[in-house]
This record gives sequence, C-alpha cells and structure tokens, in this order.
Amino acid sequence: MKALWLENQTLQLRDDLPVPEPKSGEALIEVLRAGICNTDLELLRGYYPYCGVPGHEFVGRVAQGPPEWTGKRVVGEINAACGHCRFCQSGQPTHCENRTVLGIVNRNGAFAEYLTLPVQNLHAIPENVSIEAATFTEPIAAALEIQQQVAVGDRSKVLVVGDGKLGLLVAQTLALRGCDLLAVGRHREKLALLEKRGIQTGFADAVVDRAFDLAVECTGNPEGFSIARRGLRPRGTLVLKSTYAGNLSLDVSSLVVDEITLIGSRCGPFPPAIELLANDRIDVLSLVCDRFSLNNGLAAFDRARERGVLKVLLTVSD
Amino acid sequence: MKALWLENQTLQLRDDLPVPEPKSGEALIEVLRAGICNTDLELLRGYYPYCGVPGHEFVGRVAQGPPEWTGKRVVGEINAACGHCRFCQSGQPTHCENRTVLGIVNRNGAFAEYLTLPVQNLHAIPENVSIEAATFTEPIAAALEIQQQVAVGDRSKVLVVGDGKLGLLVAQTLALRGCDLLAVGRHREKLALLEKRGIQTGFADAVVDRAFDLAVECTGNPEGFSIARRGLRPRGTLVLKSTYAGNLSLDVSSLVVDEITLIGSRCGPFPPAIELLANDRIDVLSLVCDRFSLNNGLAAFDRARERGVLKVLLTVSD
Repeated sequence: MKALWLENQTLQLRDDLPVPEPKSGEALIEVLRAGICNTDLELLRGYYPYCGVPGHEFVGRVAQGPPEWTGKRVVGEINAACGHCRFCQSGQPTHCENRTVLGIVNRNGAFAEYLTLPVQNLHAIPENVSIEAATFTEPIAAALEIQQQVAVGDRSKVLVVGDGKLGLLVAQTLALRGCDLLAVGRHREKLALLEKRGIQTGFADAVVDRAFDLAVECTGNPEGFSIARRGLRPRGTLVLKSTYAGNLSLDVSSLVVDEITLIGSRCGPFPPAIELLANDRIDVLSLVCDRFSLNNGLAAFDRARERGVLKVLLTVSD
Repeated sequence: MKALWLENQTLQLRDDLPVPEPKSGEALIEVLRAGICNTDLELLRGYYPYCGVPGHEFVGRVAQGPPEWTGKRVVGEINAACGHCRFCQSGQPTHCENRTVLGIVNRNGAFAEYLTLPVQNLHAIPENVSIEAATFTEPIAAALEIQQQVAVGDRSKVLVVGDGKLGLLVAQTLALRGCDLLAVGRHREKLALLEKRGIQTGFADAVVDRAFDLAVECTGNPEGFSIARRGLRPRGTLVLKSTYAGNLSLDVSSLVVDEITLIGSRCGPFPPAIELLANDRIDVLSLVCDRFSLNNGLAAFDRARERGVLKVLLTVSD
C-alpha cells in the first residue's frame, strides 16, 4: 500500500508497504481523510524518536472487523492499551504502561491507505457529520480533556493563549461552558474566527495581570507560557496543552508563593467531541487551510510547516 | 528595643529600635521564642528584597490588645490581610493583594523583643504545649496546607523528598493520614527521626520510578525536584513546598504526556497545627539543634546556615 514513511527525520512517500494485518481484537480501516497536527511536525523535527507511518487524526471506513462495524465510517482513539496494566485496570487506558500510540509510538499511523486499531478504540461517525469535520474529533477530544481535569464554571475567568489549530478548538470548547473567556494570539485573521463565534479575543497586551482563574497554554513556546502565567490570579490553574521543544525555565518560587497549579493535558474523550460535531456546536471547517492527496503528502507537510497555516488535510480515499 | 535588623543582605543586632505601636485591630506581642526558617536564610542571601526585622515563626505573650487576649501565650498567622480585596472577600486572606507578611514583606518580624500583628491572626497556645514546641506551629501549618490542596487517602502512595526542617514535618503530618509513605533524604541521622515514628525512609535510590500518586518536594533544589518527578506515576501530583533560588529547567513535554499536576504550596491553617501539638501527635523537639539568646542572634544565624543543621531557636524572653 501507499503511505508516508518517517525515518531519521526524513519523510518519504512509499508504495511498497504491506497492508497491515489486524491482530485479534483489531479492525482494518481504510483511511479516508487525515489531518496534520503539530505533533506530526515535531516528530519530523526529531523531538521524539519515531520510525514508521505518522498520522493520528483520521476518518476511515472499517474494511475488516466485527460484522457490526464493517463498512462503518469511524474515527479512532489513538492510544492502544494492553488492558492489563495498573492504569488500564484503573480506567486510565490513555496512560497504559504498554500502550502503542497511532502514528506516534510503535504503531503505524493514518498517513496511509490502511491502518489497524483495536475495535474498542473505534467510534462511529453520525451521518450528519462530514468526513472533513470528523477529522477534527481527536483534537476536539484533546481540548475537552481540560474540562475533565479542571472544573470550569460559568463564572470562571478563563484565558486561552495561542491561536493555532489547538488554541482555536480549546477556545471554542471552553466558550461552550459559558465562562468569561479571553483568547489571545498573534494573528488577527485567526482570532477573527473566534470573534465570529462571539468569543472575546486580543493580542498579548489585552491580558490583565493576575486576573484569570484558569489559563490554557496552547502555543508550546516560552512566550506563551509567560503570558498565561502572568494572567493567572494566585491559586489559579495553568493547563499545559502543548508540548515544548526543549526545556522551559520556570520561576518555581513564584508558583509556591502564589500557590499556582500547573496541569499537563493530553488526549481526551471522543464521545463528547463527536456530539459537539453532530450538533454543530463547533466550527472546524474554517480551520481547514488546504487539502492534498496522499500522493502529494510531502507537499502537504511543506504546507503545514508554513508559518500561520492552520489545518492541512490529506485526502486518501472517498 | 533590641532586634535583629536585615538591610542590604547584612544582618545586625540593634538596640535602638522603638517598640512598635499596634494599629487599630492589632495587638502588641512580647516575643518569647522564635525559630529560624530557611526563608530567613534566603532573605539574608538576598533572594527576596526585604529591609527590616526578619522572623516569622514565634511564640509570644500579648502585651497590649483586647482584654481577653492580654497576657495570653499566642502564636500568629504571618499574613496580615487588608480584609477588603477580592482575595480577602473570597476567604483567601493568605493571598490578600495588599498583605504584609511578618518578617518577610513590609512588616517587622519576630527576631525582636516585640512585634505587632492583627488580633485576628492570633491563636492561643494550650497550657500543655511547651513554648519551644509551639514555635513549630507555623511550619506545621505550612505542612498541613498540602492536605488542603490535595486529597490524601489511606491508599495513596506518597513520597516526601527532603529531610530538612520542613521535610521532616511534612512527612510526619502526611504519615498521620495513614497513607503509604516513603520519605527520602541525604542524612541518615535525620531520617532516623522519622524511622522512630514508624515512617519508612531511604536515600534517593529507594524511590521506584513512576510509582507514587503524590510527591512532595521539600528540598528547594533541582536534584530534589528530579527525584520527586521521576517517582510520580502518570496523572500524579507534585507539590512544590520549597522556594528555589533562581529558575528550574523543566521538561514540559513529559508533564503533558504524563498529565502531571504541579502545585505550589505555602502557608497553611494554624488550628489543626496547634491541635497536633496539643495532642502530641508530632515530634518537633527532636528537630531543635541549638538555642541562642537574641543577643547572640548573629551567631544563631551562623549556626542555622551550617550544613545539616535543623531548627535553631532564639530565646527572647521567658
């Protein structure tokens, strides 16, 4: 089959890969669309060691699996858990000690004609959700993880820092809580997507110091962290939604004096993400910047790496 | 009156200071004993700008104030709050925006014959608590703050890193929760104080990676942080109980992937601290290394700065 292949920080288009064989409990999925995420760009930059097919945001059609699934349009949770370790046993499969992660850790991903995933990872996509919209299920779920970790009430003052792909989804999901929200970024045209949804936006200078109960850092860079930190009131919570290249230099004493909570946040729940899409509660299509065929996958990555570009989709099949 | 005076990172003994005048709502307190804390040593090193009388751990006798308090032995909460700001109004006076802090921020402290504090900050010491034991009320309260911030159950696996003054109190207060506790440090003789109380102890090599639900960092140095971090399971909580000189270099990506929570922790509740002392649930007297008169206050600081020394007390009056 055809796929993008990452090895030694080099991406290539191959057509000599075997169609993967689903193991017991797994389904074979024909990929329809896949989205390029910042994590994919970081893998390519070598921030994490990975050799294989990248890609973890996808919509597919079940080609082989239990009869009730065959032919269904699906999205899939990306952590394939062992089911036996202490984290699986305690209901935290995304932290399974033996997990593989689609396109990230020891499991070939979605920039390919086919992939395999455990059947239990699959979620059917309702008829009224378009294929393109459904490729956003995984990042919406990641945005919703914040609300699993922190109580966000309608009186919470919330700051979202970053107007990239993830920041725009995080801001939209938090806005649905009815909280007092400000989203800040660097790009007027991206922030305008949020303004259209009635979300207050601005640049960094709009952030009042020590004013917010919750700040969500979606930039992955120290400047973004610094804005989120200074916006927080004492005893506030800073959610780290992005990974960072290298280390961050942190003033621990100020965290102690202000009794700040920092929370790392990763993968989230798919069912509420699908529900938001089915009920048209979140605008994802405005985030699509460009579409490429799998054959033009290398060009798609070039495009995704351009400054200011939002979501780039790969059309694999229809 | 006599007092230690800190100015430009230099400590001096003065006897020309006026006895402070209590403002409305404040009491004048004759200091009986005061303890030297790491924060005092950091003030002297210039980590925070402060000019005035240092000292915030004390036991005193009310010399002037409401009749029901006069003559009583008291300890005092160190944050003097304005009562009007949004934090005072929301029941968080320790984060008052306009606070002064005894011996730390804009309020002369306890290494003096007299100090003043708002009456509402005072707590009477029960008859059966010795003056020396009562000087530990403030750091015990700081240790108890952890339990205000994090739920510690009897099945929680808890790691305390650091066998200094604060670490030994933190370990003892957590042990009273009946949790599965390991305290690690560098000094066999200090850890022995915990072993005597039935607390499991060890050096850093006793810390199993990714095993603990909660780790409390009480060293204030990067090595201590690193031990606490590696001991934490995914979704675990790391409490920062010590301030750090300078910044800490932090691997944010691993916090995101493991969804770790970091919590800064500072001042805590006095009443349960006093109750622990009154019921003899915590050993503090073993932590006293040395005693000096206020006249020998400079020597007391020299002693407190020696490596491996635990609590040094100043005897001001009886």
